[in-house]
Amino acid sequence: MSRFFQDLTPLSYAPESDGLAFRHYNPDEVVMGKRMEDHLRFAVAYWHSFAWPGGDPFGGQTFERPWFGETMEDAKLKADIAFEMFDILNVPFFCFHDADIRPEGASFAESERNFKEITDIFAAKMETRKTRLLWGTANLFSNRRFMAGAASNPDPDVFAWSAATVKLCMDATHALNGENYVLWGGREGYETLLNTDLQQETEHMGRFLSKVVEYKHKIGFKGAILLEPKPQEPTKHQYDYDVATVYGFLKRFGLENEVQVNIEQGHAILAGHSFEHEIATANALGIFGSIDMNRNDYQSGWDTDQFPNNVPEVALAYYEILKGGGLTKGGTNFDAKLRRQSLDAEDLIAAHAGAMDVCARGFKAAAAMLEDGALETAKQQRYAGWQTPQAAAMLDMDLSGIAGLVDPDSAGPQPRSGRQEILENIVNRFV
Amino acid sequence: MSRFFQDLTPLSYAPESDGLAFRHYNPDEVVMGKRMEDHLRFAVAYWHSFAWPGGDPFGGQTFERPWFGETMEDAKLKADIAFEMFDILNVPFFCFHDADIRPEGASFAESERNFKEITDIFAAKMETRKTRLLWGTANLFSNRRFMAGAASNPDPDVFAWSAATVKLCMDATHALNGENYVLWGGREGYETLLNTDLQQETEHMGRFLSKVVEYKHKIGFKGAILLEPKPQEPTKHQYDYDVATVYGFLKRFGLENEVQVNIEQGHAILAGHSFEHEIATANALGIFGSIDMNRNDYQSGWDTDQFPNNVPEVALAYYEILKGGGLTKGGTNFDAKLRRQSLDAEDLIAAHAGAMDVCARGFKAAAAMLEDGALETAKQQRYAGWQTPQAAAMLDMDLSGIAGLVDPDSAGPQPRSGRQEILENIVNRFV
Amino acid sequence: MSRFFQDLTPLSYAPESDGLAFRHYNPDEVVMGKRMEDHLRFAVAYWHSFAWPGGDPFGGQTFERPWFGETMEDAKLKADIAFEMFDILNVPFFCFHDADIRPEGASFAESERNFKEITDIFAAKMETRKTRLLWGTANLFSNRRFMAGAASNPDPDVFAWSAATVKLCMDATHALNGENYVLWGGREGYETLLNTDLQQETEHMGRFLSKVVEYKHKIGFKGAILLEPKPQEPTKHQYDYDVATVYGFLKRFGLENEVQVNIEQGHAILAGHSFEHEIATANALGIFGSIDMNRNDYQSGWDTDQFPNNVPEVALAYYEILKGGGLTKGGTNFDAKLRRQSLDAEDLIAAHAGAMDVCARGFKAAAAMLEDGALETAKQQRYAGWQTPQAAAMLDMDLSGIAGLVDPDSAGPQPRSGRQEILENIVNRFV
Amino acid sequence: MSRFFQDLTPLSYAPESDGLAFRHYNPDEVVMGKRMEDHLRFAVAYWHSFAWPGGDPFGGQTFERPWFGETMEDAKLKADIAFEMFDILNVPFFCFHDADIRPEGASFAESERNFKEITDIFAAKMETRKTRLLWGTANLFSNRRFMAGAASNPDPDVFAWSAATVKLCMDATHALNGENYVLWGGREGYETLLNTDLQQETEHMGRFLSKVVEYKHKIGFKGAILLEPKPQEPTKHQYDYDVATVYGFLKRFGLENEVQVNIEQGHAILAGHSFEHEIATANALGIFGSIDMNRNDYQSGWDTDQFPNNVPEVALAYYEILKGGGLTKGGTNFDAKLRRQSLDAEDLIAAHAGAMDVCARGFKAAAAMLEDGALETAKQQRYAGWQTPQAAAMLDMDLSGIAGLVDPDSAGPQPRSGRQEILENIVNRFV
Repeated sequence: MSRFFQDLTPLSYAPESDGLAFRHYNPDEVVMGKRMEDHLRFAVAYWHSFAWPGGDPFGGQTFERPWFGETMEDAKLKADIAFEMFDILNVPFFCFHDADIRPEGASFAESERNFKEITDIFAAKMETRKTRLLWGTANLFSNRRFMAGAASNPDPDVFAWSAATVKLCMDATHALNGENYVLWGGREGYETLLNTDLQQETEHMGRFLSKVVEYKHKIGFKGAILLEPKPQEPTKHQYDYDVATVYGFLKRFGLENEVQVNIEQGHAILAGHSFEHEIATANALGIFGSIDMNRNDYQSGWDTDQFPNNVPEVALAYYEILKGGGLTKGGTNFDAKLRRQSLDAEDLIAAHAGAMDVCARGFKAAAAMLEDGALETAKQQRYAGWQTPQAAAMLDMDLSGIAGLVDPDSAGPQPRSGRQEILENIVNRFV
Repeated sequence: MSRFFQDLTPLSYAPESDGLAFRHYNPDEVVMGKRMEDHLRFAVAYWHSFAWPGGDPFGGQTFERPWFGETMEDAKLKADIAFEMFDILNVPFFCFHDADIRPEGASFAESERNFKEITDIFAAKMETRKTRLLWGTANLFSNRRFMAGAASNPDPDVFAWSAATVKLCMDATHALNGENYVLWGGREGYETLLNTDLQQETEHMGRFLSKVVEYKHKIGFKGAILLEPKPQEPTKHQYDYDVATVYGFLKRFGLENEVQVNIEQGHAILAGHSFEHEIATANALGIFGSIDMNRNDYQSGWDTDQFPNNVPEVALAYYEILKGGGLTKGGTNFDAKLRRQSLDAEDLIAAHAGAMDVCARGFKAAAAMLEDGALETAKQQRYAGWQTPQAAAMLDMDLSGIAGLVDPDSAGPQPRSGRQEILENIVNRFV
Repeated sequence: MSRFFQDLTPLSYAPESDGLAFRHYNPDEVVMGKRMEDHLRFAVAYWHSFAWPGGDPFGGQTFERPWFGETMEDAKLKADIAFEMFDILNVPFFCFHDADIRPEGASFAESERNFKEITDIFAAKMETRKTRLLWGTANLFSNRRFMAGAASNPDPDVFAWSAATVKLCMDATHALNGENYVLWGGREGYETLLNTDLQQETEHMGRFLSKVVEYKHKIGFKGAILLEPKPQEPTKHQYDYDVATVYGFLKRFGLENEVQVNIEQGHAILAGHSFEHEIATANALGIFGSIDMNRNDYQSGWDTDQFPNNVPEVALAYYEILKGGGLTKGGTNFDAKLRRQSLDAEDLIAAHAGAMDVCARGFKAAAAMLEDGALETAKQQRYAGWQTPQAAAMLDMDLSGIAGLVDPDSAGPQPRSGRQEILENIVNRFV
Repeated sequence: MSRFFQDLTPLSYAPESDGLAFRHYNPDEVVMGKRMEDHLRFAVAYWHSFAWPGGDPFGGQTFERPWFGETMEDAKLKADIAFEMFDILNVPFFCFHDADIRPEGASFAESERNFKEITDIFAAKMETRKTRLLWGTANLFSNRRFMAGAASNPDPDVFAWSAATVKLCMDATHALNGENYVLWGGREGYETLLNTDLQQETEHMGRFLSKVVEYKHKIGFKGAILLEPKPQEPTKHQYDYDVATVYGFLKRFGLENEVQVNIEQGHAILAGHSFEHEIATANALGIFGSIDMNRNDYQSGWDTDQFPNNVPEVALAYYEILKGGGLTKGGTNFDAKLRRQSLDAEDLIAAHAGAMDVCARGFKAAAAMLEDGALETAKQQRYAGWQTPQAAAMLDMDLSGIAGLVDPDSAGPQPRSGRQEILENIVNRFV
């Protein structure tokens, strides 16, 4: 073990422990016929855990990590530490952007060489470990060249640079047997309509995404292509606003059967939705892929990327996921960062361990609710009227025909209780 | 003139007046080759102006109107007053729901008779006046039978009742030569996912809308069918969240060429968008129809439906509308209500007159910006790179091909200023 | 038992029940040396439970209650039903406004007679029951006479009417041995600064509150006087915005030792705060009084007044309350309304029972956290530096003196981890 | 002129220009008996204009300035450029933090030497120019030592370091004849209540502020001490939430006659208020000091610090300022940053020039509204009832006495229209 993690040893499942251990997450426990590890498919995010210095708009770096720096030596030490942490946490997956893992080179070629050297190291480490890649992605937003977008940039040279970068990241993801490839439209959006051609920018995004799908098939990548909705920040308006918006975008370009969504709780909140709403919407539209399980502070209007800590909320999210068939290629990624005052290595481990426990509790509650069936039974009863042949026939009639079904002497249908509080009470039996 | 409006006479264009007059709205003034009246197509909303009693969640009726009551006599007096106001304001259009204009009957048939009696009175009044119908619509949200939705209701009898009601309102709108027919999904949404089948409810809405489109063609109605997006309120989540969401919904059911949107400033704000964003999005997606020009208070989280009063904001909205070709079948409807302390008849007139002036100023500024061309020229320059043959060719290449265009020794494209503040300064020359 | 509640019998503590029973709330269970009933001091709100018809801004009455109407017979039936519900729920307290319990009369005197007749009935019922009055209050916002405020009204006659009404309600509260008297400034605020004299209105409010305090002492009322903060709704800006604002208001008029706050979770959320923040702030400022334990939907921008259902959130609130010494004269009032689709008597009972269980779980978790002490120990360690004599001395030095303490060669103090995630993990051991 | 500003020459008042000039701001124009320059008292903020690199949470530096770097040579070049810009803009004032103007040293003493060397350069430059210092302030939030606050830090050594830093900045502000000294509580707040002693932290802040006031008097500084409210960001909760909260804080420590507020539009918006509300509140409470005239985007939940561009909004702010007596020691500071895509020197000049024009238009409109008097007359009529001897007498009566004034047979006072829309129309005559 490195000096950074010092005395820390791999965490075990120890329900009674009050030290660093899992109190609820037991990877081998079988729930609904499958091991918890295979249900939850936890992933660590390379960027927040290893590349973020602790800055915010009003202050700079707070973390002091031995691997912070711009050399390849730093990058290699970072990789060593990262895989140590995957071992300590016993997580099956990780995720990365190109920019997290290698120093930016002076040229595209140098950046590429740096990148490949590190992904080769990843490949070597993964040979002897359980660690797999949940998804890879390209950072097309941090460097100033992307300040006006990537695929949606007014400058075609940036479009080209972005395409070349995505190709590189897809190749690496494919080589590392990644389960998915994600595109978060970091600066695909606008600051002001006054300088923006909304139609052209979104058309270019559609063209770009079509190329990504085409390339996936060309190289034989079997993973899913995922878009990650977010309503705003860093731009005033992000084009991939929320799940429903992304669905419309996919339909516009005929990609709804090729691309799915990676949904983040924090982004859902910023868009004015609950997390479970976004998941349920994706399920209803057939585009659910994966989740980023990091919460947003309800009182903060920016992306706070906090580790999840509210079991009832997490349970409702997994309940919708389970109803849709569970996480198949997707996983539970913690796109979460420590608070910038949480300086210590122990904070990094504890934050992930606590989050995994919260997810385990929420997941088990969700599974129990589903097995219990009371909620789904109540829902079916509410819609039972639609099971009659008359109701089915009505759906095929035209407006005049349906109007003819209404008894002119009737004062109208009598409403029935929606029973919301009773259903909420049922949920509280499980969480 | 009735006792209600007493001394009020039709308003004239009198730029120097400080009484009740138009200081900026001159219907006959020609802007960009068309009369202002024909550009702006102002409409009064029957519900807020004549049917709303001044209540809010913490208090009841504040207005005392001679026509308040549940009899047909009341409804007829209300119609007289309404047309008096259309004359005073010299507005070319009005809009109504069935429930605004007639008392609810004890049966469907009685409600229908009441409705037809009043729409016949409308027809008679319209024969001798310039007043036309911008759009009709059905109120499928106020009565308790709609508490769980209309087309999305768990009870098929409510679906049928809604269909019969919409048929009635479409027939009347057609008979009155309405320019559009609007559907606002008042309670098409949910309070809790726990009792909601998201997929079934939205499928029923899609089926319902398809029937509306089919019926339009069947009866030969030439007006547009418009959906009105709103993110929430009264329900926790409204299915027609915003323009992008509605577009996805239309695409899902193959209705994107049949249905457009009626966009309200207040609803845009509640959805986290600027008004001009929603208009620009609708233009980019080819579904722009009409507007409700009533603002929301930026500090209130509910629908405040206030008369517009900020000229620069209104100018940006009309600028996007003009870039998209202007209001053709659509119009500028004031879905605005008096503040509940604004008790007097004079308040009702002054509020509309002030709003029309604000719109006239904003519209003229927008036209001047467009004719000036500085903003659009700057935008074209920003995207000029995409006009080259190489850029066009790149759009047709695959990812590998594009990657080959990037010079491996390059440090990347140099960004250019987005010039936002300079563009904002240009706008301020006109507003 | 009345026909309304039919088969419903008083709820018992039955942890294994999945029917109408308490699964967690056991009034007689002793926690931290006191019975849970005496800790939690639950109260039912008369208005939402018995007077609210189920309307919202887009629709009218959904509930059909046998006591709805404007006669004294209706009011008496309502009182019977209310006390039946108190018995079923075994709640020790209730709360009411004058307007909830009696029909408005044609004159002040008639309203007063109606009011007294009902409060006499209350007194008689309370003689044979455990039910007590947590607080009384006056509704100074629903009637149109209060549309521009009560104590802050531009019309002195409204100020007088309000004073007379508050006197009446204070007399009744005193007569019924109420534990507190509450003032919620329903329309003490403004719609627009353009017609508002902010300084005069708040001065009149200060004068009014001083009179309330003076009258309390005059009549020998031993209960607490409580203000209830809310940031907005119904008005654009409510003067009693949040706890910190109310504190400044009390200090301005020298009332900070006479008046405390009744804090509502929903109002805290609308003001941009967490509930526990408002409680902690009131404790820090010495003005904590009582709570309204009804949550706001995080995605809705208006007052949703929902029954609490998230145990971790409730636990954090009770944790701050317990640290401040617990509820003494105050209580846990459910200022919560059923969703308007929850039509049945069973919904009313189940909603309260579920809420009481959620509170019981949260409260027990809070007590356990406090007894465990890990959180408070960690906090003391964080501030341990301030326990040294040097630190204490520094607080008494002037700026120059303190500047002299800084070693000019120092690079500055080293920060220490704030350990937020570890502390959140500790909380999750208890909830 | 330096290479940075190249061809740019001092801007003149040229109403017809469409280049870089003032179209509305004419410093020598007399409004309400005083020169516009002396009314508006514009100031440039050193930090955003010269020290901010264009980063945001998702990307780094975009600006490339010749003075970016950590040497004293860089700092001196920055000072040269800054004063060139003050000349180009003809602004009478500027504002700075210590950290904006000098490189951080390896020790307190070195930072102090760096700071004094630059402030001496400022003093020399100011001798031959009109430029004055509106306010100085200390940056107690960017360096990691302040991550847990300054005066409210759990570590007394940080309190001491902060005190020494503030002393240094106050000395410099005094030496440069600054008109005010500002304290913005950058990290005076908390991330989680779990590790926070709210009472101790705010008490320490009160003690700290008392020392600042005492030191001001000790050194004979005649400027005002100003707190700058902000509700959140960077922390989850900032103690100086809004004007009303700051007032309560000042009252708590007996400082309400010694300290005033510097109000920022953006911070008002983030706190759920309009800018004019915060100004009016400060006037009503007697603590108005100065303004930061930079707007927040209404759809963004973080501090966007944009240049003002909406004349009607700015007019309402100046209207409240003028009603309170205008800016005396305070000024109009642009705490505004370019959008990070606005890379060019021209953007920096144009942004300020456009903002100054917007302020000039708004200010002139505000002055005209005040001179016109229609709004204030309407307000006085609304409150006219309070001018009667009976109303005045009532304010001195007790609750019983006032209750005796209510006619028991009365149905209550009749409300009168609040006339909001009519008043809004009046405003629109001027903006």
